[in-house]
Amino acid sequence: MLYHFSFPHYSLPPRLYHTVRRSFGNSASMALKSFIDVGPDSHFPIQNLPFGVFRPDSGSPARPGVAIGDHVLDLSAVASAGLFGGPILAGSDCFHQPNLNKFLALGRPAWREARTTLQKMLSSTEPVLRDNAELKKKSLFPMDKVEMVLPIAIGDYTDFFSSMHHAKNCGTMFRGPQDPIPQNWFHLPIAYHGRASSIVISGTNIIRPRGQGYPSGNSPPYFGPSLKLDFELEMAAVVGPGNELGKPIDVNNAADHIFGLVLMNDWSARDIQAWEYVPLGPFLGKSFGTTVSPWIVTLEALEAFACKAPEQEPKPLPYLAEKVSKNYDISLEVQIKPAGQKDSCIVTKSNFKNLYWTVTQQLAHHTINGCNLRPGDLLGTGTISGPEPESRGCLLELTWNGQNSLSLKGTSRKFLEDGDEVTITGLCKGDGYTVGFGACSGKVVPAPQ
Amino acid sequence: MLYHFSFPHYSLPPRLYHTVRRSFGNSASMALKSFIDVGPDSHFPIQNLPFGVFRPDSGSPARPGVAIGDHVLDLSAVASAGLFGGPILAGSDCFHQPNLNKFLALGRPAWREARTTLQKMLSSTEPVLRDNAELKKKSLFPMDKVEMVLPIAIGDYTDFFSSMHHAKNCGTMFRGPQDPIPQNWFHLPIAYHGRASSIVISGTNIIRPRGQGYPSGNSPPYFGPSLKLDFELEMAAVVGPGNELGKPIDVNNAADHIFGLVLMNDWSARDIQAWEYVPLGPFLGKSFGTTVSPWIVTLEALEAFACKAPEQEPKPLPYLAEKVSKNYDISLEVQIKPAGQKDSCIVTKSNFKNLYWTVTQQLAHHTINGCNLRPGDLLGTGTISGPEPESRGCLLELTWNGQNSLSLKGTSRKFLEDGDEVTITGLCKGDGYTVGFGACSGKVVPAPQ
Repeated sequence: MLYHFSFPHYSLPPRLYHTVRRSFGNSASMALKSFIDVGPDSHFPIQNLPFGVFRPDSGSPARPGVAIGDHVLDLSAVASAGLFGGPILAGSDCFHQPNLNKFLALGRPAWREARTTLQKMLSSTEPVLRDNAELKKKSLFPMDKVEMVLPIAIGDYTDFFSSMHHAKNCGTMFRGPQDPIPQNWFHLPIAYHGRASSIVISGTNIIRPRGQGYPSGNSPPYFGPSLKLDFELEMAAVVGPGNELGKPIDVNNAADHIFGLVLMNDWSARDIQAWEYVPLGPFLGKSFGTTVSPWIVTLEALEAFACKAPEQEPKPLPYLAEKVSKNYDISLEVQIKPAGQKDSCIVTKSNFKNLYWTVTQQLAHHTINGCNLRPGDLLGTGTISGPEPESRGCLLELTWNGQNSLSLKGTSRKFLEDGDEVTITGLCKGDGYTVGFGACSGKVVPAPQ
Repeated sequence: MLYHFSFPHYSLPPRLYHTVRRSFGNSASMALKSFIDVGPDSHFPIQNLPFGVFRPDSGSPARPGVAIGDHVLDLSAVASAGLFGGPILAGSDCFHQPNLNKFLALGRPAWREARTTLQKMLSSTEPVLRDNAELKKKSLFPMDKVEMVLPIAIGDYTDFFSSMHHAKNCGTMFRGPQDPIPQNWFHLPIAYHGRASSIVISGTNIIRPRGQGYPSGNSPPYFGPSLKLDFELEMAAVVGPGNELGKPIDVNNAADHIFGLVLMNDWSARDIQAWEYVPLGPFLGKSFGTTVSPWIVTLEALEAFACKAPEQEPKPLPYLAEKVSKNYDISLEVQIKPAGQKDSCIVTKSNFKNLYWTVTQQLAHHTINGCNLRPGDLLGTGTISGPEPESRGCLLELTWNGQNSLSLKGTSRKFLEDGDEVTITGLCKGDGYTVGFGACSGKVVPAPQ
């Protein structure tokens, strides 16, 4: 049905164009195969097509790409070849940019058009790229040869606190087991503004921060390298068009402002954080580095893995009440590889669906006061802990603030040590394929002297 | 001595060039006069020369300018005329930009060079601009005819909490008179990350935010337009070159990373803030709008008004201990003009020198964990309250959280009402001249329905 249309299918009459689009949207999952070899465990089959920004080599300008199997397809080359023939993208220079912000600003119709075009172009039955050796050479790069860079210029980064299990564990530790979760938590998605400048791409070393910690007795505060360095297992939503100042986004339209999700490690220095955070919240305990994965997996690719979000009681206020309240079934895992060890150890397994507040509720809440979101803004979920002890999303919870040790094949940890490499992975298991996020990793290096 | 050199003086041998520079730097204040008429109460004499960004009319591109009397000097026109002849600026396109970020990145040597060049060019005895009618027409615009825009692209905005009187008043109100100031406050300049996207230029209306407030008894939380809208009298430092991730800035070099100061109104919705801020700090109670004044007054211009910062006890940790600990004597005032009233009322008078933590300590603390600052970042001081009841910097303090009313010539306020226009001004009184900041104002308009 699908593949006998000649490319580009945008020259079809509008009725047929929409038929094609819908066919791809609905039946994509099982049947669709790419002419590019994609292993059964690859995170990047044709059903995924996540967006990132890369340099083919370190001297070349950064440009947008999508991941397909072990390759990166250069969208600037595809655009230069005139293969984005759709009504929105044909005249746009959004893929000739060093980040995805311009593409994000175009909104969901453009995102759908790009996905439809690319999914068709990469399919096994479509000759336009498959049979064009010169274009393949120009536009397809082995993933292990390219340098991935931050895919977005991040204007503002906000971090939420949306896992009830995380809120409960932290509250129990610091405020005791009586009412560990503050009353406001059940009425609104609590969040704070994070630091945008120190968000780095997976693979960047994380320099152990120095700072002040609680004084003991009458001595001055501790000062030196953080003694309680931690990871936080998070994901983050990448914001699309956004809104003007003073014009909130309705919760039922909020999904149209979310391009996709990335993995995120919100590194935290628990000693610095504990001493500084009253009364204005986390600051230097967080702002020394936040790692994101290079590939943004779109909500379209995740749609096949949508699931019902948890029941909310008390019922949210009308501005947070969604007609359809959706989470995604994304399996998450954190591994630590200590310096000099060959193997990493899995230290926690969680799932995105553990979030109490959905990303659409987070976004609607963020704008209810009129605050403007801009393309490329990042909304972190907060640490995604599950209900079981082994699904806790940070060492603070896993070792109960250092009271217990976590065993790591022959060694153990209360908090992170220099040389530890922390890797977050995330994936959705489909029927015969995987939609994955790749990895989000960073190695801890010593504090400056 | 000074003015008989032909322009540009950069063609002088290096020794003479430095003599000229030093002469300007030291003796500028009293003697110096511009050929442009500057009234005795003007905020913008030749001793000031603050930097901003403007459009001559709403259709023209934004470009950098300096204020001189009632005029704005277009720096792109000055640069195009080849009048920035100094070693750093001659070959730079930093004044052909829609914001000052590129100029800020160049650092203090470039800032000094620009100031020296402009002060000479605008002086009464210097013919190069004074006697060039065509260039004057191209480069000088009446201030009341231009549109001022945000002078910087703000990557990150941080807000500190550096007035002890403000900390004490807030602590007394919310935690009681026993130990109103948390222990950490005396050891580090407390701060939180603010929202960069909603920073607006003076003159922009502020839309009253909607949001949640504390529930009473067992009812659901309040939802609606904020009932406790407030201003906050602040100033903010504009960051210059900044630092790489992982490389803290020494407190004794911190001034080289501060280009200058602006006035700031950090509008706050006290009911939203009170309900949301535990445990992660202020979020929607602040992010609906922050107003800054259009003119950045440089540290060079403020140097004549430097004064000793307060004694700090306990002594700060070594990374916060400054060889010279400096504040500036800047008189600050807030006026409110209710809708329909002809006159505004002064509601508070304070002074920048009331800050306990200096801006250089703030900056050094911000980077001690390795956090990177970028050109154009903004560091708010926090509300600048003085020791007297009439020098409190926000309505929360002035009305003691609405317990008292503030009289405003025939009407009164507990918090701001729709139509209220709030204006902050700031100035330094020199001997026969004033170095001022102009105004930072905004009018409250009703919340969306």
